[in-house]
Amino acid sequence: MDYPLLDQIKGPEDVKRLHTDEIPALCAELRQKVIQTVSSNGGHLASNLGAVELTVALHRVFSSPKDQIVWDVGHQSYVHKLLTGRMHEFASIRQLNGISGFPQIGESVHDPYGAGHSSTSISAAAGLAAAKRMRGEDGFAIAVVGDGALTGGLAFEGINNAGRAPENLIIVLNDNKMSISKNVGAIARYLMVIRSKPIYFKIKDIAEVILAHLPFFGKKIRTALVLSKNAVKNYLYHSTIFEEMGLIYLGPVDGHDTEAVERLLNRAKKVGRPALVHVLTVKGKGYPFAEQNPGAYHGVSRFHVETGTALVPVSHETFSAVFGRTLCLAASNNPNICAITAAMTSGTGLTDFSKQYKDRFFDVGIAEEHAVVFSAGLAANGMLPVFAVYSTFLQRAYDQIVHDVALQNLKVIFAIDRAGLVGEDGQTHQGILDVAFLNTIPKMTVYSPSTADELSNDLLAAFYEIDGPVAVRYPKGTTPALPKDYCPTYRHYDLYGSGQADILIVTYGRLFAEAVRAANRLRAEGLSVSVLKLNRIKPIDEVCFETAMFFSQIYFVEEGMRSGGVGELFCARMAERGFAGQFTVAAIEDRFVQHGSVKELLALLQLDAKGIAERVRRGNSKYPHRLHAEERLPI
Amino acid sequence: MDYPLLDQIKGPEDVKRLHTDEIPALCAELRQKVIQTVSSNGGHLASNLGAVELTVALHRVFSSPKDQIVWDVGHQSYVHKLLTGRMHEFASIRQLNGISGFPQIGESVHDPYGAGHSSTSISAAAGLAAAKRMRGEDGFAIAVVGDGALTGGLAFEGINNAGRAPENLIIVLNDNKMSISKNVGAIARYLMVIRSKPIYFKIKDIAEVILAHLPFFGKKIRTALVLSKNAVKNYLYHSTIFEEMGLIYLGPVDGHDTEAVERLLNRAKKVGRPALVHVLTVKGKGYPFAEQNPGAYHGVSRFHVETGTALVPVSHETFSAVFGRTLCLAASNNPNICAITAAMTSGTGLTDFSKQYKDRFFDVGIAEEHAVVFSAGLAANGMLPVFAVYSTFLQRAYDQIVHDVALQNLKVIFAIDRAGLVGEDGQTHQGILDVAFLNTIPKMTVYSPSTADELSNDLLAAFYEIDGPVAVRYPKGTTPALPKDYCPTYRHYDLYGSGQADILIVTYGRLFAEAVRAANRLRAEGLSVSVLKLNRIKPIDEVCFETAMFFSQIYFVEEGMRSGGVGELFCARMAERGFAGQFTVAAIEDRFVQHGSVKELLALLQLDAKGIAERVRRGNSKYPHRLHAEERLPI
Repeated sequence: MDYPLLDQIKGPEDVKRLHTDEIPALCAELRQKVIQTVSSNGGHLASNLGAVELTVALHRVFSSPKDQIVWDVGHQSYVHKLLTGRMHEFASIRQLNGISGFPQIGESVHDPYGAGHSSTSISAAAGLAAAKRMRGEDGFAIAVVGDGALTGGLAFEGINNAGRAPENLIIVLNDNKMSISKNVGAIARYLMVIRSKPIYFKIKDIAEVILAHLPFFGKKIRTALVLSKNAVKNYLYHSTIFEEMGLIYLGPVDGHDTEAVERLLNRAKKVGRPALVHVLTVKGKGYPFAEQNPGAYHGVSRFHVETGTALVPVSHETFSAVFGRTLCLAASNNPNICAITAAMTSGTGLTDFSKQYKDRFFDVGIAEEHAVVFSAGLAANGMLPVFAVYSTFLQRAYDQIVHDVALQNLKVIFAIDRAGLVGEDGQTHQGILDVAFLNTIPKMTVYSPSTADELSNDLLAAFYEIDGPVAVRYPKGTTPALPKDYCPTYRHYDLYGSGQADILIVTYGRLFAEAVRAANRLRAEGLSVSVLKLNRIKPIDEVCFETAMFFSQIYFVEEGMRSGGVGELFCARMAERGFAGQFTVAAIEDRFVQHGSVKELLALLQLDAKGIAERVRRGNSKYPHRLHAEERLPI
Repeated sequence: MDYPLLDQIKGPEDVKRLHTDEIPALCAELRQKVIQTVSSNGGHLASNLGAVELTVALHRVFSSPKDQIVWDVGHQSYVHKLLTGRMHEFASIRQLNGISGFPQIGESVHDPYGAGHSSTSISAAAGLAAAKRMRGEDGFAIAVVGDGALTGGLAFEGINNAGRAPENLIIVLNDNKMSISKNVGAIARYLMVIRSKPIYFKIKDIAEVILAHLPFFGKKIRTALVLSKNAVKNYLYHSTIFEEMGLIYLGPVDGHDTEAVERLLNRAKKVGRPALVHVLTVKGKGYPFAEQNPGAYHGVSRFHVETGTALVPVSHETFSAVFGRTLCLAASNNPNICAITAAMTSGTGLTDFSKQYKDRFFDVGIAEEHAVVFSAGLAANGMLPVFAVYSTFLQRAYDQIVHDVALQNLKVIFAIDRAGLVGEDGQTHQGILDVAFLNTIPKMTVYSPSTADELSNDLLAAFYEIDGPVAVRYPKGTTPALPKDYCPTYRHYDLYGSGQADILIVTYGRLFAEAVRAANRLRAEGLSVSVLKLNRIKPIDEVCFETAMFFSQIYFVEEGMRSGGVGELFCARMAERGFAGQFTVAAIEDRFVQHGSVKELLALLQLDAKGIAERVRRGNSKYPHRLHAEERLPI
């Protein structure tokens, strides 16, 4: 592929230098580059294609890094990366040690603030703008936020406080009627109303004419109008929610008309108050498959550019699909079961449920807190709500799980997808905290199945065996290969290998497959190793601790944070029983985990079979840290 | 005191039975009862006094428990408790084993949903209402939400989804212009506009008259108006944000005119769509001290009814006050230091700062998520933001601490007040999760000072010694009494007692005072006990583990959740070093903690000096759980 214009763009200043006539060609090259790269690396496609002209216009009107652009969620920042000196690294996007698929502080001076989770940009830009004012620094802070992200309460909190922000704050509303799939809720409906209006400024003119004619009204009316003049003016002028909330509203404008967007952005720079610029875009613009089905092309794996079809078809049923199928089956037998999603119907496997049980299905938009509290309300009145959510996004509702669900001991079921490492989406999306933060919450029961069959089984247990809140967490992808001599019992734990061995590896979830491979390698080397696989990780059956007491070395391996994880808990319980053997926790140590394939990342963290085996081998140089009395440090 | 009417009220049906003429007398008795009880128990005063007539009206129009009232935050539910059969238990409110100061599922059928944290009621009521519809049950779900709570994003998420809710959802906006102190932000300003309007229905009539006169306009205008008829109608009719968001708006109405409120509530029952009823109330109504200073009388300790002054004046400077003083001092030397609060200026000790450094002070309303992201934005541009927040409310921003602060390694300082047990406010307010959830977050540094001096010291360390995010957490109240032979070093840890003792109690924060008292008792009994006090609890200095290795018994004592707490972490680190002694964790085991005084609760949890000493004595029957081979259970 040739990129004659794009190859010349070393930074935003080169975008400014282009003649207006050259912009359509630049946009075409940008689209081409995005499609070509995403088709080979996977990534976010439709949102980037929709933001091409908007991004170009932003860089022509503003001067990054003096002006700071904050991309909400950030999956639409590919074009921004291409225009800010990352053209040549772009092929490495989302790959181990390559550039991130999201804006990331440190990757470039043009990424003043990172993202990955939704609805943060307005608050962040308000902070950047306020700091600029306090430090006497020039420049704007610009939040670029989608209409989907606007359903998140944090965005509202940002707008509620934006009025206090200095005049160097601009909000660009990139309205494509979509979250990942169709946007929902009152704000989405309201934006539809604004979109369909005649151009806003025309309306304003009409309003002015009406007011000008008011003297011709009868006296009574006139008096009433004088009394309520401000109120009426308010109705006529402050016609959008955004203006009621103290912002200057500008728009709507066709987001694929670069010149028009530039004009409006230039106007926003001059209004002297925080402004909201309403830009209408088409998600997937310029790639027919994505335009026709923007939901499916939101985030994609490698695909054929010509046919739009995936290069690596999924061979087995994913955990998500098994969840969705099991839920539909359960719902057919139980009219109380309902499903809640925060704008993730397809990703969480709920597409069939949403069609078959329309009345019991709730897509609440990107609003995880509401999803949890709404579920708690449903449960309080006898329904059996299942909130299906990615691990990383459930973090957003921690307090609601504590305060609304667990404290009230309400039976809400959390179906936690993408638990553990997710791979290429990187540090903002890894599901490595849920076990640790759920551990802190009283009354929660947590399952972490290793296989799709176990997931089905755990869901049924959640429905019919457990009181109070239950989480069932499972990884992205499909069931990993397990050895033929493993006989699943579908109990709260399984022991693979002999109870008489010396060494015990304790683990749960996806890592069980790695642990058994490690055990088999170590056995081949003459070590005596068994694996205790936990299925229910909170609470842990007492018998698990009792069994573990008879091994001399225990390695607890988990795909999540060490601090607050199950390993530490297991260790403390063993210590209290007087376990005097060797105990080692292998987990993720006080760090975030970058992007790369799950396989690469597990290797990097020494949590794959090879890494686990290596840890066990190292562990046989016993108690390396134990000090003798004379080595004691003064305190 | 006599309560002739109130004594007859056994439940809501008795409120309905009263003649309209009797209502003012009932309201006077209710006020009397609330003032009298709060003056002797402490509790929430001003918010309850403001909601007397509203609560009476709700129970006259609706039929609890068929109709379900959800009180947002819930501190305004005292009158509701008095009217729903809890008159005779009311004297026990907020006391150990008494009734709760908040609505609580299980306490009464009239509490269909509990609360304590803000902005949950709309989502919860939407869930209750949806469940009623799906189950074919009668009745309304009514969310009573203050204008302060409306600044929380979760409330907005609730409204955004309320349009989809069935017609049995009613939102009552109890607008007193206050959060705990003056409400802030665009929504607050907007409500002021609505409040100051002539009655809404009058405005509607005027609008109708204007439309009726339109034919007299010139042809050009008429044509334009026909084209944009819907738009204009929209401006004239859908005049409030709430209507734009799909609700029927009714109000505003004087919330102290019971009959008027009843009329509007009856209307809301009939509109056939989710309605918002805007009720104007005066916080503190009927008690002059509280009316004049509703912020100070929001939550109070025991006081003289006649003078309004506290019965038990604070003798020493509280941790909150020391924090505020230290922050002012630091800010005078460093122009980058700024302070952020989520509607808690006074509670967190920021009153002086808010006056002295107006430009660097941000009250963002009840919006903890925004507070954290806004702080991250400030930090990204070089400011040094300090977010002062109660431990229990910081839970609401868990994801933002992870995703916006820690992941980006931004230096935001979290001043976590009310860390640990808070006492009478009970289970929704105990600060017993922060240590555990902060433990899960990479890159966080956490200090937990035991004394006010140490707090000052830790804050300075946070400003000038630590990279990345820092939390400094401290309890409600004043520095506990410490023995004279304790010499604080203001390092990351202190050892009280000999390094050669057998038994080591490890602890941090407020419990250090209890631990040293326990140690001294045990010493008197002939045991050899020292206390290791941690000041920096994340990360823990290696030398602490090294030192602990030389004791034969370790008791880790913490005023927080066991799961995910520092005790388990400490234990695992010791195990990996090959510690072969006895290790016991004493903390809060997988439970929430009810209301009562801090002293009572610590005793209940066996975390006071007596309880700690008892645990150590028990611990000397070593390894009670250790099994012999023949006792082994099959797995």
